[in-house]
Amino acid sequence: MTEEKKIKENVVYIGNKPVINYVQAVVTEFGYNGSDGVIIKARGRAISTAVDTAEVTINRFIKDAEVKDIKIGTESLTNREGKISNVSSIEILLKRKEKN
Amino acid sequence: MTEEKKIKENVVYIGNKPVINYVQAVVTEFGYNGSDGVIIKARGRAISTAVDTAEVTINRFIKDAEVKDIKIGTESLTNREGKISNVSSIEILLKRKEKN
Repeated sequence: MTEEKKIKENVVYIGNKPVINYVQAVVTEFGYNGSDGVIIKARGRAISTAVDTAEVTINRFIKDAEVKDIKIGTESLTNREGKISNVSSIEILLKRKEKN
Repeated sequence: MTEEKKIKENVVYIGNKPVINYVQAVVTEFGYNGSDGVIIKARGRAISTAVDTAEVTINRFIKDAEVKDIKIGTESLTNREGKISNVSSIEILLKRKEKN
């Protein structure tokens, strides 16, 4: 039995820790064998940190990586009182540049 | 004399006011004749507000608009003491969907 679709893009979720913590996570994911890319995901205020993480990773650590795709969206969250609130989200896909 | 390249994409810069202020600015830009699109620009902490602005504009106000392109980058700023600091930036291009 062969697995047709292997998940090769690892996801790093951004919270409210310092940027360098997430950069370290992204760099680690890139280090794994067979890792085609890393997706950085964030919601709300953490979106700025997600962009910082992508930029620091590319400019300082994985210089042969590039931003391949960025998606933004809106997610509906329900809090404990049942109130629905909308929050913006971002997904940044980093990949190694293709060698020519 | 004809102007070959008319600037048809207006820019809205995001600061630290409430999201709705910037949504109003974007909606106003879309209202102008000949406006092909609006670019939302932000730096640092305002990046989250930029994404909120794009999402609220599309979901609530200009429903035939879509996110056409998103770019992220790093800008070097020099403060009064001459110290250079890097700050992340985002540019979100909103356009009206093409009619089929």
